[in-house]
Amino acid sequence: MAARRLAIVGTGLIGASVGLAAKRTGEWTVAGFDADGDSLAVARERGAIDVAAGSLEQAVAGAGLALVATPVATLPAQVTATLAASEGCTVTDVGSTKRAVTASAGDRERFIGGHPVCGSEAHGPRHASGELFEGATWFLTPLAETEPERYRGLHAFVASLGAVPVAVDAHAHDRLVALTSHVPHALANVLLNQAGSVRVEGHEPLAAAGGSLRDMTRVAGANPRIWVDIFLDNADELARALAEHRRRIEEVERALAERDGGYLARWIGEAAENRRRLLAEAYPDPGSLMRLRVHVPDRPGVLSGITQALGAEKINIEDFELRHMTPERGGTLDVLVAGEEPARRAVALLEAQGYSVIASPAVEGA
Amino acid sequence: MAARRLAIVGTGLIGASVGLAAKRTGEWTVAGFDADGDSLAVARERGAIDVAAGSLEQAVAGAGLALVATPVATLPAQVTATLAASEGCTVTDVGSTKRAVTASAGDRERFIGGHPVCGSEAHGPRHASGELFEGATWFLTPLAETEPERYRGLHAFVASLGAVPVAVDAHAHDRLVALTSHVPHALANVLLNQAGSVRVEGHEPLAAAGGSLRDMTRVAGANPRIWVDIFLDNADELARALAEHRRRIEEVERALAERDGGYLARWIGEAAENRRRLLAEAYPDPGSLMRLRVHVPDRPGVLSGITQALGAEKINIEDFELRHMTPERGGTLDVLVAGEEPARRAVALLEAQGYSVIASPAVEGA
Repeated sequence: MAARRLAIVGTGLIGASVGLAAKRTGEWTVAGFDADGDSLAVARERGAIDVAAGSLEQAVAGAGLALVATPVATLPAQVTATLAASEGCTVTDVGSTKRAVTASAGDRERFIGGHPVCGSEAHGPRHASGELFEGATWFLTPLAETEPERYRGLHAFVASLGAVPVAVDAHAHDRLVALTSHVPHALANVLLNQAGSVRVEGHEPLAAAGGSLRDMTRVAGANPRIWVDIFLDNADELARALAEHRRRIEEVERALAERDGGYLARWIGEAAENRRRLLAEAYPDPGSLMRLRVHVPDRPGVLSGITQALGAEKINIEDFELRHMTPERGGTLDVLVAGEEPARRAVALLEAQGYSVIASPAVEGA
Repeated sequence: MAARRLAIVGTGLIGASVGLAAKRTGEWTVAGFDADGDSLAVARERGAIDVAAGSLEQAVAGAGLALVATPVATLPAQVTATLAASEGCTVTDVGSTKRAVTASAGDRERFIGGHPVCGSEAHGPRHASGELFEGATWFLTPLAETEPERYRGLHAFVASLGAVPVAVDAHAHDRLVALTSHVPHALANVLLNQAGSVRVEGHEPLAAAGGSLRDMTRVAGANPRIWVDIFLDNADELARALAEHRRRIEEVERALAERDGGYLARWIGEAAENRRRLLAEAYPDPGSLMRLRVHVPDRPGVLSGITQALGAEKINIEDFELRHMTPERGGTLDVLVAGEEPARRAVALLEAQGYSVIASPAVEGA
């Protein structure tokens, strides 16, 4: 089969990664266009595109599919321009919000919105990777007017990049990501700025922070060039979810004021059940997950000694996390193992290497 | 020097771990008491205590130091009983809140509150570890009446267990931990229950959750037997911090309603700066930290191949995190390396092993 032509408009991290992933399938020649000549040149150098087009028109000429991967705020205009510049080709985008771009798209038979959930903090084509979408959810927002053949084609394309296509209405998409991504990002910022804004009798809360604050603010301060636009673009849904968040906080405050231990116990129990449901998406049987916690010294060979020993015994490691290794204090290693029997063998192996191990179920009450 | 006598009242995870850590110093014989005979027997079996005492009186007889490690809600009564049962010995506790227990302590010359911040999710003496306190902050809350000699002794004891003693006023302690631990725990529950409470046009938000929601809710649903008491005991400070949290959320809602991009940019920038300050406590130079993200297949030897190669090149790994490994899709590995030059070498090594690597600064804008 002759290679089809893919046009990529915007050759930053995502655009160039799509190019690399598409080229690996052997089914596409890729033309790229970017208003930033450097970005275009790097994408060409990295082999993410075959042709560095001199204009949008040149990029989409003869293309069967055009993918717009410019910043969120520019998407409505870029998608409209891409539809206008092309004839007959299917147009999609990769923006983190879907309502505005979908509402503005002119040729509704040919446009299908898209959003790969790959959460990389890097940017620019230099960091592009053909494996970025491996296993990632890729939302697609077809319209009533979308031609089914085009939707099937885009669905197959996305799957060929390693992603898992999920069809959803554009409005529902924005409500979903408000809850699963935009509220968490906003709360991480609020939490960190609150803890960072005070000194308590000379003590810096940030200096006394435990692991929970560090984990919960991992995404705080994420690239403002990207996130201001995302927050503004999804402002209504985000604000609605934040208001609901405040309402739920008020309920907790009421329970605290009334010393209502029963409420707090039910509330924690509900969270434990939701945590199990969340992990069930990632792990087949979260109730069987055991967490092994080991304090390890900062010595050469420590990590490879542990990974080799567990690997040799064919113990299936689900997660493996070494945090905050310092020369003086070493670090904390958490290993997630599925099943009590493999967990027991892992503990025995680690103890045989001289470590003391704290084992506990990864999900409380499971 | 003859071994001194340490009394441990409550031989659960923390009490038994203190026993193990104290025994390693070779300076103590340890008597333990627990109303739960099983817990006491296991602590004895594990070697966390030398003597399983039949009563509180028997445990503290002749002790130079008594450590009360019973559940938070029982601490005021237990500390009072321990002070009454003992003569002359210094009494401390390990509760996560300090105001209530400090206010209720009768003999204020002999009592000094304590709180090791070691964040283990396990419980029971079976999971005890003599290394639990290695590098952990251990708050001490001496009073105006505290005899300096006793404070110096307790300070040295805590340091001998591997912990870092930090003196703080009991009230300030509770305000600090509200911000750094109790608010994060409460928000994790709220966030997860909010996302878990709705379906958006048939879609489960929890099924569509990205890494940010998973990271931010790691502590959600934590052991209600422990956390209800902690929340109730610190109810006033927690409620105050939650009200301030709501006020800050309202500010964000206002900025969203007014499409105030400038506010959002400053707010994200402040969070990035606070994130740098938070990481500066853990890492000497957070600005130099590079995150390498690698997609790895689920094959035996993958982890050990990577850890060995990096170890052989003496590349100092600060964090090393493999998440969500599945047989079909493999997993995502994040490696944190300090310094651009070592990061470049690590990228080259990994690429030579056939991986594609996405490298980016660990702290945005650093």
